[in-house]
Order: sequence, then C-alpha cells, then structure tokens
Amino acid sequence: MIYFDNAATTQPYPDVLETYQEAAAKIYGNPSSLHYLGHQAKRVLEASRRQIADLLNVKAEEIFFTSGGTESDNWALKGLAFEKEQYGKHIIISAVEHPAVKESAKWLGEHGFTISYAPVNSKGFVDLKALADLIRPDTIMVSVMAVNNEMGAVQPIQEISGLLADKPTVTFHVDAVQAVGKIPVGDYLTDRVDLASFSSHKFHGVRGLGILYKKLGKRLTPLLNGGGQESDLRSTTENLPAIAATAKALRLVADRQAAAVSGLIQMRDLLYEALSDYDDVLIFSGRDEQSVPNIVTFGIKGVRGEVLVHAFEKHDIFISTTSACSSKTGKPAGTLLAMGIPVKSAQTAVRISLDDDNNMSELEQFLTVFRQIYADTAKVR
Amino acid sequence: MIYFDNAATTQPYPDVLETYQEAAAKIYGNPSSLHYLGHQAKRVLEASRRQIADLLNVKAEEIFFTSGGTESDNWALKGLAFEKEQYGKHIIISAVEHPAVKESAKWLGEHGFTISYAPVNSKGFVDLKALADLIRPDTIMVSVMAVNNEMGAVQPIQEISGLLADKPTVTFHVDAVQAVGKIPVGDYLTDRVDLASFSSHKFHGVRGLGILYKKLGKRLTPLLNGGGQESDLRSTTENLPAIAATAKALRLVADRQAAAVSGLIQMRDLLYEALSDYDDVLIFSGRDEQSVPNIVTFGIKGVRGEVLVHAFEKHDIFISTTSACSSKTGKPAGTLLAMGIPVKSAQTAVRISLDDDNNMSELEQFLTVFRQIYADTAKVR
Repeated sequence: MIYFDNAATTQPYPDVLETYQEAAAKIYGNPSSLHYLGHQAKRVLEASRRQIADLLNVKAEEIFFTSGGTESDNWALKGLAFEKEQYGKHIIISAVEHPAVKESAKWLGEHGFTISYAPVNSKGFVDLKALADLIRPDTIMVSVMAVNNEMGAVQPIQEISGLLADKPTVTFHVDAVQAVGKIPVGDYLTDRVDLASFSSHKFHGVRGLGILYKKLGKRLTPLLNGGGQESDLRSTTENLPAIAATAKALRLVADRQAAAVSGLIQMRDLLYEALSDYDDVLIFSGRDEQSVPNIVTFGIKGVRGEVLVHAFEKHDIFISTTSACSSKTGKPAGTLLAMGIPVKSAQTAVRISLDDDNNMSELEQFLTVFRQIYADTAKVR
Repeated sequence: MIYFDNAATTQPYPDVLETYQEAAAKIYGNPSSLHYLGHQAKRVLEASRRQIADLLNVKAEEIFFTSGGTESDNWALKGLAFEKEQYGKHIIISAVEHPAVKESAKWLGEHGFTISYAPVNSKGFVDLKALADLIRPDTIMVSVMAVNNEMGAVQPIQEISGLLADKPTVTFHVDAVQAVGKIPVGDYLTDRVDLASFSSHKFHGVRGLGILYKKLGKRLTPLLNGGGQESDLRSTTENLPAIAATAKALRLVADRQAAAVSGLIQMRDLLYEALSDYDDVLIFSGRDEQSVPNIVTFGIKGVRGEVLVHAFEKHDIFISTTSACSSKTGKPAGTLLAMGIPVKSAQTAVRISLDDDNNMSELEQFLTVFRQIYADTAKVR
C-alpha cells in the first residue's frame, strides 16, 4: 500500500500511540480533582503544555487544547467575534480558507457580522494590496491560513504581519494546520499573530486533539462553557492521553523536520519532472519556496479527479481530490476556482500529499501506475 | 490504592484501550476520503454509531459524536437557542445542573436570552409544580439532568416528559452523563426527550469523546462549522479510535449493568449503615430508588470537605469534594445549597462515587480509616 494522502490525515507514530496508551491506562485521575491522582494528571498536562509551547516558541499560558483544528478555527473566529462585537462587526478571511474558517465566517455572516474575502492571485497567494484595501475602521479580525490545504501555497504571513503592524485592534488569526513540520515555526507564528490553529492528527499525532495558540492578554469568549478548565476558556475534562501524545508527536516531527523537508523536496521534484513530461497533465501547485514540499496538485485534461483517485486505488495507491473535507460534495477545489482556474480544469484536480515516511521507490511505483492510467484515459481525453 | 472518585472519571477498561489502539494504528484513513481507506474508516464509524444507538434504544441517525459531555451540553443549549431564537428566548434549567449546562445558560443569558431556574426540594429533586409554573409561551427549552453529579439524585425525567407532553414547541434536553450504567436507559431517554448528553470517560470509555442524542427531525444549529461531517451538524475529522472505543465501553457497561447495580447497592448500604452510627456525620444523599446506587455524599460536622479528602488521601483512598469540576474553586456544592442546606454544612460535604470494580474489602478499609479520621477530628468539631 502506498499512502499519499497525508494532508487528509497522517498515520499516528507508534511512539505517539504508546504515550497515549500509557497515559490513558496509568494517569487516569481527573486533573481537576483535589487529590494526588488529580495532581499527577495536572502535572503531566502542564508538562505537555510547556513542551508544546517550547516547540512553538511561545509561552505555556498561550497554549489551549481543543478537540481539533476545526474547533480551534471555530473558537478563534466566533470567540473573537462575540468578544469584540461592540467594537466592530467586520471580519476578513482569505478566499481560500479551509471550510472550518470559511463556514465559521459564513455562520457569523448570518448572525450580524459582515465578511469580506481577500482574493488570491493566479498562483493561489493572498493579494496583499487587495487585503489592505478591505481593512475598515470596524474590522476586528483578519484570518489567513499559513499553508493552503489544496495547493500547498505558503501564504505571506510575514507580509500580512507587517501590514497589520500599526492596526492593533485587528486580531490576526492563522490556521496553521498544514504548516507543522513543513515550514519553520517563525514563518507562520510571527509576533503579530494573535491566534493560531493546529491539529494533532495532521502531524502523526492523534484524532480529536487540536491546539489554539492565543497570545497573552488577547481576550476570547469561550465556545465551551462549564467546569472552568483551560483557565476558564475551554471547559471539559482534559483529554490528557491525547494531549501527552500530541506533545510527543510535535517533538518527533520537530526533530525530523530538517531531514524530512529535504527528502520531501527530492520526492516532490521527481514527481514534478516526471509529470511535466505528459502533454495532457495540468500542474496546479507550485514548486518553489512559496509552496510546502509535500503537496503536488495536478490533473489530466478531461479526466475528473474522482476517476483518477479510483484508478490509483485499484493499485493500492491512495491519493485525494484536493481536500478530504470537500471530497464527498463533488464540488471542485475552492482554492483552484479562487485562483481563476476554469471549473472544467479544476474538476480534474487530484492532490498528492507526501510524508517523510514515503520514499523514492513508492514514487517510482506511483509513476509507473500513472503512465498506465494516462494511457488508459487517452480515449476519453 | 482505593479509587472512590468514579463520578469524576473512571479508569478506561483494558478492552476499551485495546479497541482504541487497534483502530488508531490500523484504521487511520480519514472517513471523508473517497478511497478505500476512507470507506473502511467510514464503515467502522457507522458500525460504532449503530451499536451505540442500539444500546440506547434509538436510531443510528440520532447519534452524534462530540468531544465530551461539556460540548454535548453546550451544543444542546446554544445550538437550540440559536436555532429557535425567532420563536422565543426563554430557557428553563434546573437549579442543580452541571456547570456545562449552567454556564452555557448563563452565557446565553448574557446574549439576549432569559434563563429561569427550576428549584429542587430538600432532597435535591426538581420541584415539578414549580417547573410547570415557569413555562411561558416563549419557552423554547427545558434542560434537566438525569442524575445529579453531586448527590446522585435521579431526577423525575418521566414526570417532566408527561408535563411537556402537550408542549411540542418546548425542546427537552437531558444531561445523562451520570446515568449510564446506573439506571435503565428508558428512565432518562423517554420518547419525549429531544436531546441528551453523554460522556465516554464516565463509563470506562476514553477522554475527549461525548455523544449527543438528537431526536430525528429536531433541528439544531451547529456549534462547529466546517467540513460537513456528522450530517453537516458537527464538523471535524471524526475521532474514530475514540468512537470505536466508546461503543465498546458502552456495550461492556450495558452487559454488566444488572450485576453492577446489585453490587453497588450492597456497598452503598454498608456505607450508609456504618456512617449512620456516627453522631457527627451528616448524610446528604438519598438511599432509595430515586438515587443512583454509586454515590454517597456526607460530611463530618465542622470539618471542611477538603480536609477529609486530604486525610483519606494519606491512606491512598481517593474521594472528592462533591464535584471535580468545582473542586478547585473552594465553593461548596451548588446542589446542596439549592436544597436549602446551610453553607456551613454544605462545606463539609465529600462525595464517595463507587464503581462495580470496587469491592467490600475496599469499603471495609475505607471504614477503618474513617473511624480513625473521625476520632482525629474530634477536637476540631
């Protein structure tokens, strides 16, 4: 089996599952309990928080645990909107955000807020000038992802940080779900970023665990009210095994990052070169420093993405139509449409998302199968 | 070690952790993915949902997965409030709800809704007459827990169901977090109940996984918007390992329920009889069919609950001051105050919450230690 769908989800590292297992079996006290078992759980909880904070170069008090990237995004947008509604009701998001941001914004749009969409250029990068023009006196938030999940485009978070430098009343949220382990932390967690979302299962951690970075002093209305956990900002009994496992995963990924990235670039480059040889192949994603090294998005003219996914599947090769979260709606990738790519072309798109556990031999197998599929689809093109 | 704090959290069953581990390691596809690994994950997801639905005597389409009891409660209250705000803005909750319900209601109270609190009588049961009197034409919801977490009082869900029988516009939510495995499902999941909350880690499942039962046809605004999972009502990549583990836990608990309850009654009765012999012991919880058999709440006159918790801890016996979620605020149990018990008495309260994994020998050890602590505290009483 060849798994090239790592942007949808990654396989948890065995060490990560071991950490989960050990914490679940042995440290089962409720961190809120007054007794020793509670203190023990609380200590592991805070040690995990510190470890994650260190790896992200932030303070432990700035790390909050959620149930996933989606909750982190929902909390960032809705929590900020409810917190700041008396100061303004205008929110800007990029046109290529993940549905967790886009749909949260849409919901806010139905509840009294105004949403503006910052366009992207033909390469999928947010247009800085257009973004600047959208900012109004009542703008309370700008939300732009670090790495686009459909294309791998690395968004200009540094430049947007500069743009917002003299606008302290605008909260800057970054969905960093696809960035971890692919680009340096400093590229997306700048000093100007107020909120950032992370998802454990995207970096070989576990399902059901996300992180929200919240800059010290930044206020946010809770999405989950209750027992007062997470400094009274995100109530619920803490998911200690998943939190400890996530700290482990983040450390492993950080340790491997330099080697992983160079391996990924090698694989990505081979893929690009091989695919470029085919006349009817459209390559949508970029191949430079502004793109993460693990995502290649392409299509065969006239062949719908789903057809390619199923053709590869017959050879035990797993790829995706651009995004798992929108794969079943049959809609073409929103990012490609936002880039101005015609619907007909966008519908051909598939996404290869590599991991450093993949290797050259897998890529060669993939390319052998691709040659065959390309030939088989010649008649429909 | 003697663990008598099972209402705060239970130890996951080894079989449950094995299920988690197996699913996490082997079924790691994203259920939203188009390919085989996605289908495989989706099948396990839906099989788990069906199994849970069967055990709760409801339909699979009525089961939604969340990150815990707190999210289920927040979603039920806020989701219903946002869904129905044009029809009315009045919500009734009992005076003894868990903070997840109480604080959600409070938040809604700060955002345009009116909250009424149905009082309880001196035994901790919701006063039906008073509840009936609170219902207004603009009442959109009644939320009453199945089993009180601080006292073990089984609330009159059947009677409230009768009361609401001719009021179809009032949504009835039941927080059933402490009920699973302790009382028959039919006692709290009546035909009239529209929404019910569950938490996996309270029945030997895993952290970070809750369930919301939502009656077919009942509408609810999502709390988490995004990729459209869970019939577009609760977005986020599904926490498959935790969901499969929860299905396993619920089946194990259901299988054991009859035997467990009779064992718990035996232990509870021994505890009651022994504690009743002490002149300065106040027993707050009930000992009849209207109380779950696993919770005994009591205090020693003049001795604060925390003091008792720490005294027992020195003997490796773990109990709680009424509720983990409020233990660190130092406030006395809200339920006892709502019952009209004076603050001074309420401050003495500790909660023993048993599990059927506990045994008579542990209880006898507990009582031996209690005798000693009772003697030691004689001078401060």
